[in-house]
Amino acid sequence: MKTLVVLSGGLDSSVMLAHIMRENKTVECLFFWYGSKHNEREYQAALKIAAHYGVSIKKIDLDFISENFESDLLLKGGSIPKGHYEDESMKKTVVPFRNGIMLSIAAGYAESIDAKQIAIGSHFGDHAIYPDCRRAFTAPMEQAIYHGTENNIRLLTPFGDLTKKDIVKIGDDINVPMFMTYSCYEGRERHCGECGTCVERKEAFILAGVKDQTRYEKKS
Amino acid sequence: MKTLVVLSGGLDSSVMLAHIMRENKTVECLFFWYGSKHNEREYQAALKIAAHYGVSIKKIDLDFISENFESDLLLKGGSIPKGHYEDESMKKTVVPFRNGIMLSIAAGYAESIDAKQIAIGSHFGDHAIYPDCRRAFTAPMEQAIYHGTENNIRLLTPFGDLTKKDIVKIGDDINVPMFMTYSCYEGRERHCGECGTCVERKEAFILAGVKDQTRYEKKS
Repeated sequence: MKTLVVLSGGLDSSVMLAHIMRENKTVECLFFWYGSKHNEREYQAALKIAAHYGVSIKKIDLDFISENFESDLLLKGGSIPKGHYEDESMKKTVVPFRNGIMLSIAAGYAESIDAKQIAIGSHFGDHAIYPDCRRAFTAPMEQAIYHGTENNIRLLTPFGDLTKKDIVKIGDDINVPMFMTYSCYEGRERHCGECGTCVERKEAFILAGVKDQTRYEKKS
Repeated sequence: MKTLVVLSGGLDSSVMLAHIMRENKTVECLFFWYGSKHNEREYQAALKIAAHYGVSIKKIDLDFISENFESDLLLKGGSIPKGHYEDESMKKTVVPFRNGIMLSIAAGYAESIDAKQIAIGSHFGDHAIYPDCRRAFTAPMEQAIYHGTENNIRLLTPFGDLTKKDIVKIGDDINVPMFMTYSCYEGRERHCGECGTCVERKEAFILAGVKDQTRYEKKS
């Protein structure tokens, strides 16, 4: 059974890809370009991860998001706030209903390539800031996709109740080259080490007790 | 409270726009370009209807659908089947999860323009062929959008349990210029009169006992 994995090139979706491939070898990946500051770095990371696992990756351009949506995560938006991932200031980095849009397109594309499952790597730690990462969203979205598609496509959210620490542990256990993945919202060559997602990434490695090979501009 | 209406330029969404505007004057419309054979005619009709009601309309290009999805409704797809709307052959005109994709983007865009509701004109007659028009889809989709957005956006499907006959009656009651709307999947200047959606449109006017001012190539 073919599975379509939404792969952003970040840590979560990259570990999820490896996790899913342990039981299911027929996998294709979907990468979304939506005009974020870190999209190009994410894409390069996603290509490396897909190549590492020998799976194909399809890039979908969502120009309408960069043209019409408001978010500081976008190239045209304001500067990226520093601080903790769960801080109120991080709300400015929300791209409205981004996961809803990605999952809907993934569902439609899955029907066109005869994939029976789609998977997204959102996790419990995303919940504080991003409403479209919470179970209150993913549970009904799963139903909408199942009943709204001809093939009754299933939505998998294997990390929905895990923390990023748990994901780092899994990644370490199954030898995911996590150093290849890219998280930083700033989108420079190295991870800035100061934005919310960098702070969260650092913390997750420390809490998991796993060596962090990420190259940060600011280490502590 | 601002409402964002998905306006295709077809009969259903045009009557719905007028229906919603009776109680809610703050309305913007969203038109989706996804590469169907009749998209240009639909767009011209949508522009006329929006102008008639004095509301703004935003066009969103979904090039990734025409590039990657399979459907005979698309310009690149096979020929449009003739016959009844509910026939099995019409399944080839399904654009996979189209309404899911449109509603997700509408939800995200609504957050960016501070609209609190989005509305789509799918109706009971669509259910036989299109899984993403059924209540089993719209009910959980409503929940996913509500919980997945910062502003808890509401999804309105006022015609979800009505037939096209009912919609024609409503349109007639509230003086919608239904002759301006465009339904035909062939996308020529006049409605072909033979494709599933033309057959359905003709039937609806007859059953509603309302004069049909549509210009068909083939009248009966």
